[in-house]
Amino acid sequence: MDTSILPAVLASLNQNRPRFLDELKAILAIPSVSTDPAYRADMQRAAEWFADRLRALGMSSVQIYATSGHPLVYGEWKQAGAAPTVLIYGHYDVQPPDPLDQWTSPPFAPQVRGENLYARGASDMKGQVLAVLEAVEALLRHGALGVNLKWLIEGEEEIGSPSLEGFLRDQRDLLQADFCLNCDSGMIAADAPAITCALRGLAYFEIRVYGPAHDLHSGLYGGVVHNPAIVLAELIAGMHDEQGRVTLPGFYEKVRPLSPQERADLARLPIDDEYYLQATGAPALYGEAGYTPVERIGARPTLDVNGLLAGFTGSGSKTVIPAWAMAKISMRLVADQDPQEVHQQLLQYLREHAPATVRWEVQDLHGAVPSLIPTDSAAVQALARALEETWGIRPCFKREGGSIPVVAQMQQVLGLPSVLTGFGLPDDNLHAPNEKIHLPTWYRGIEALARFFLHLNDNGKR
Amino acid sequence: MDTSILPAVLASLNQNRPRFLDELKAILAIPSVSTDPAYRADMQRAAEWFADRLRALGMSSVQIYATSGHPLVYGEWKQAGAAPTVLIYGHYDVQPPDPLDQWTSPPFAPQVRGENLYARGASDMKGQVLAVLEAVEALLRHGALGVNLKWLIEGEEEIGSPSLEGFLRDQRDLLQADFCLNCDSGMIAADAPAITCALRGLAYFEIRVYGPAHDLHSGLYGGVVHNPAIVLAELIAGMHDEQGRVTLPGFYEKVRPLSPQERADLARLPIDDEYYLQATGAPALYGEAGYTPVERIGARPTLDVNGLLAGFTGSGSKTVIPAWAMAKISMRLVADQDPQEVHQQLLQYLREHAPATVRWEVQDLHGAVPSLIPTDSAAVQALARALEETWGIRPCFKREGGSIPVVAQMQQVLGLPSVLTGFGLPDDNLHAPNEKIHLPTWYRGIEALARFFLHLNDNGKR
Repeated sequence: MDTSILPAVLASLNQNRPRFLDELKAILAIPSVSTDPAYRADMQRAAEWFADRLRALGMSSVQIYATSGHPLVYGEWKQAGAAPTVLIYGHYDVQPPDPLDQWTSPPFAPQVRGENLYARGASDMKGQVLAVLEAVEALLRHGALGVNLKWLIEGEEEIGSPSLEGFLRDQRDLLQADFCLNCDSGMIAADAPAITCALRGLAYFEIRVYGPAHDLHSGLYGGVVHNPAIVLAELIAGMHDEQGRVTLPGFYEKVRPLSPQERADLARLPIDDEYYLQATGAPALYGEAGYTPVERIGARPTLDVNGLLAGFTGSGSKTVIPAWAMAKISMRLVADQDPQEVHQQLLQYLREHAPATVRWEVQDLHGAVPSLIPTDSAAVQALARALEETWGIRPCFKREGGSIPVVAQMQQVLGLPSVLTGFGLPDDNLHAPNEKIHLPTWYRGIEALARFFLHLNDNGKR
Repeated sequence: MDTSILPAVLASLNQNRPRFLDELKAILAIPSVSTDPAYRADMQRAAEWFADRLRALGMSSVQIYATSGHPLVYGEWKQAGAAPTVLIYGHYDVQPPDPLDQWTSPPFAPQVRGENLYARGASDMKGQVLAVLEAVEALLRHGALGVNLKWLIEGEEEIGSPSLEGFLRDQRDLLQADFCLNCDSGMIAADAPAITCALRGLAYFEIRVYGPAHDLHSGLYGGVVHNPAIVLAELIAGMHDEQGRVTLPGFYEKVRPLSPQERADLARLPIDDEYYLQATGAPALYGEAGYTPVERIGARPTLDVNGLLAGFTGSGSKTVIPAWAMAKISMRLVADQDPQEVHQQLLQYLREHAPATVRWEVQDLHGAVPSLIPTDSAAVQALARALEETWGIRPCFKREGGSIPVVAQMQQVLGLPSVLTGFGLPDDNLHAPNEKIHLPTWYRGIEALARFFLHLNDNGKR
């Protein structure tokens, strides 16, 4: 890091806070609700606002790409030569503001109250995208941006990003980069910055077990046929061993073990058993032996039954042996598991364990690759240093148990790991009335992002 | 058996065949359809027809008992002193005749075609009740009836006998007897008379397993809670051992073992593996090791899952950890198992095997005692001899896998075992268009019943 430039950059960021706030209010005033066709013109306006802003920054190839849904904004800066290229992901669409009567100030008339700015999209995620933009602007003004940038700001995140995957496939060359910066994640608390380093993948199946050709009377035939609901139960029961480990053949072969440092990082998260007992209301916790709850959710694969159906499920009694039984079964995957391989493992398990008294079939319903950006990678290290310098606190390294489709698509289509961070707080009322962003945290976020790009530049030079 | 009277009785039965047929046509012409209120007057007429016929036989206390549904006909003959008392069960109601356009001749205009008489109720079971009546009449004419009789002819069998149990309870004293003769069962073929000696009982439960307080996101929480659908699957899987035996504690303790003679009797039934493969369409047969399919259905208890439900069961994928999972589980019971005891065994199994990570509850939905009349009992022996003398073939001893509510109620309320037989054939089209009875078999049935009562009289004297 060329530390000589830092004081000037930070001073510039401090001086410009009023302008940053004005710009944030301006974009938040555009009601870019992607779910509702009534806002189509506003969606276009919001896309143009970001395109204009990118052009003003000096980005090149700025373009609004039409899709069958809402447009995507693209822009790039390629003046850092062989230095790394960061693909900055964001979305300009917001959740619907309903129920309107629960907002203290109107959702698209941004209002500062105390330390917070209230408006739909303030935290999720117009404020986050703008934070990157302001940080980049400050660096460019001081000739201090040492990495290449590509921006991809979509307008369909809140409706599941239906156009994104096709766009990524079509523009694979355009979007080549070293990693993706995605600020759509958040902090643990105002004094606890965080980096999300991993998301689990998913492999989702429907298994059907077929026994008799039709439902049978359990009196007339109970004792001569294998009940497919019982066979299914036995197959499911066999999918875990007594240690809570999944028994599919080879299931753990590609699972990256946690390093002592990663375990220590996860142990710092302020999440204990009591937290999960409260959140789930379960009588007791359960999971793979030898790992903490945080490790089990973030760094270990799991297998769950999502649905079961067989025979008679109404009220009362019907003495039927069902002709078939169905289970929805899905696995949460961690690096470097692959949904296709897990599909094969499931088929092998069933071939080895299903009795000849039934037929079975498996439907592959959904797959998403896990994503992981190691904490010792250059990008995470640069961000971690930036966050620590800004807050004076070492950031937490989070691993999320779920999938984020955008992150999975970046990985799957472009081969890009995502560095996930953000400056929203747990009480920002995302997807709820009175969404807000905590301004002191947001300003710190801009500073941290500026430091991040500087550190990246360092790392690029090593 | 006082064989001196037999030739006269048989001659009388032969001579009276035309009258028997006329009487059968007369009662079959009354459309006593219990399911349809439009036939209420016909139901009354049919009840009166049987009451009149009992009076004409010389039965005493003949009465039509009103119920909240259709009336019951009662009559008795108590002139055999200390000899056994037979409670003759029958029903005068019939199935609806629909679809009418598939009948060759109208359902309530009985028509003889070839050796068969076609009409709704011919086989199920007006013909069967009349066969007993004609046999008793012949014996009475010759002063040869040596047992006491009680008749109970209901009008609600085809709608589940809703009034019967209450009547049995109210009239427990009136209905005291040694056993019940129920001709609502049938033959295996025209040359294969049969006695049904056992019916299985039933214990039917709904089990619910509760995990988290509400459905959870399988990404955010997969790895820290025990999935109740998996717990339920494990509990179900544990309910059978590798020999196909039920593992509930004490489940087999009261099961009466099959004697070598009983096994030999069951082995004579013309039912093989191929029969069950055809009937069920299952890829292979399955059941408790060490028993034939016929033994497993007739003489061994079973446990089946009748229904399963948990989580998301629609099309596609939903990544939910369900808050609860439900199974309908029922056991078919054999003598001397008791549904209440099996309930306790299930509770004990769950107490011993359910993990502390879930809560569970069991609802007792239905119970029916098993019934068994041993093949070496006086009644079965008398009937077996009668059938063998009539057909020249040793009858088959059948054990039915299902329950017959009437038989269970006779057992449970009155403590009476039922001797189940009948002279219908598998192709009699019960509950279907063109129901018929095979007249040569029916006449033989009347003869066999006459011989049965004579043999009973013998046994009574021993």
